Amino acid sequence: MSKLRFNITMSLDGFVAGPNQSEQDPLGVGGEELHRWAFPLAAFREAHGDEGGEVNESTPVIEGMIENVGAAIMGRNMFGGGPGPWGENPWNGWWGDDPPFHNPVFVLTHHAREPLTLNDTTFHFVTEGIESALEQAKEAAGGKDVSLGGGASAGQQYLAAGLLDELEISVVPLLLGAGVRLFDNLGGATVELEQIRAIEAPGVTHLKYRLLR
Amino acid sequence: MSKLRFNITMSLDGFVAGPNQSEQDPLGVGGEELHRWAFPLAAFREAHGDEGGEVNESTPVIEGMIENVGAAIMGRNMFGGGPGPWGENPWNGWWGDDPPFHNPVFVLTHHAREPLTLNDTTFHFVTEGIESALEQAKEAAGGKDVSLGGGASAGQQYLAAGLLDELEISVVPLLLGAGVRLFDNLGGATVELEQIRAIEAPGVTHLKYRLLR
Repeated sequence: MSKLRFNITMSLDGFVAGPNQSEQDPLGVGGEELHRWAFPLAAFREAHGDEGGEVNESTPVIEGMIENVGAAIMGRNMFGGGPGPWGENPWNGWWGDDPPFHNPVFVLTHHAREPLTLNDTTFHFVTEGIESALEQAKEAAGGKDVSLGGGASAGQQYLAAGLLDELEISVVPLLLGAGVRLFDNLGGATVELEQIRAIEAPGVTHLKYRLLR
Repeated sequence: MSKLRFNITMSLDGFVAGPNQSEQDPLGVGGEELHRWAFPLAAFREAHGDEGGEVNESTPVIEGMIENVGAAIMGRNMFGGGPGPWGENPWNGWWGDDPPFHNPVFVLTHHAREPLTLNDTTFHFVTEGIESALEQAKEAAGGKDVSLGGGASAGQQYLAAGLLDELEISVVPLLLGAGVRLFDNLGGATVELEQIRAIEAPGVTHLKYRLLR
């Protein structure tokens, strides 16, 4: 069955972005540090159109993140482009002419917009809420899984609604002290987790959980 | 060199005790769940004077927690016994006649008291603060390491003061949603961590970090 899977990197003290997020600094102060474990990896560089890089214990984890994925969902902040509406020269995402998704992407937003196709990625803008986005993404995935790309707010909404099937958290040895907590705004929802596996890698540990219903 | 080492179990959302802690319920609501991974283990049962139990990937971790340890430090709440001065029938700890420490234990408190010896564990009550307790414990450890037994408040004080050498966090697949956060009250202290290792075990992952100075 098609699963909804969410991967995100979290500091040891629970933050997925630093404080003072802005359009210019979407990861907040210190937030870039969260992803330092991924930047040198060949698997990460290749996904972003770059060559070279390292292979280590994180490699199969990064490869696994896109394995059997047929569609993606992301929050409005992750797609970027200001508080909108979209206007005459609409923002086309952070990723240039060849976004690294290669699958249909469903962007949660309050502002309707025609689909946007860049190379082999089409962004669909969903104004009907998270359940509708999930339905559309599962339909588009054709039996494969749906990857929830973040950010924290989208993750929290799916978690609180009980719609997430798998949660993979890459825990980095960093204390941000402030910022956006992954496990916030859950509105008292009961979330039961089962640990699937943990992988130790340089500068990060990848924890994977199944959500129990 | 003698190290100060801190082991504690934390929920995936960062709590080391649930909400509404009290004398009757020192781990707070739901806090007992944090330690469910340890209870069935032979290594845990043996340390608490019980027989039988399981062996799994957590076993060497539990054994490692007491390896090369020559003294312990704990906060006043972990020793227990109410807020008071000690009085005429003073509290002698949670552990009965044979506490599982088998080493000198230094209890942080604001209330002076003569040392208390129960079998091969002597509790010393330190009123001069965390640095004095650490000095005394290192002296008593005779070159071995000092184990910081908790709770969260004692751990935070040593972390904020830059006196901790190793931090081992057993992360359990549990969202408590509220309670006592491990990484709180650090007063903006800069804490730099290096990941030493991660061990996957049933229902828990043991993350070990070195504190960088």
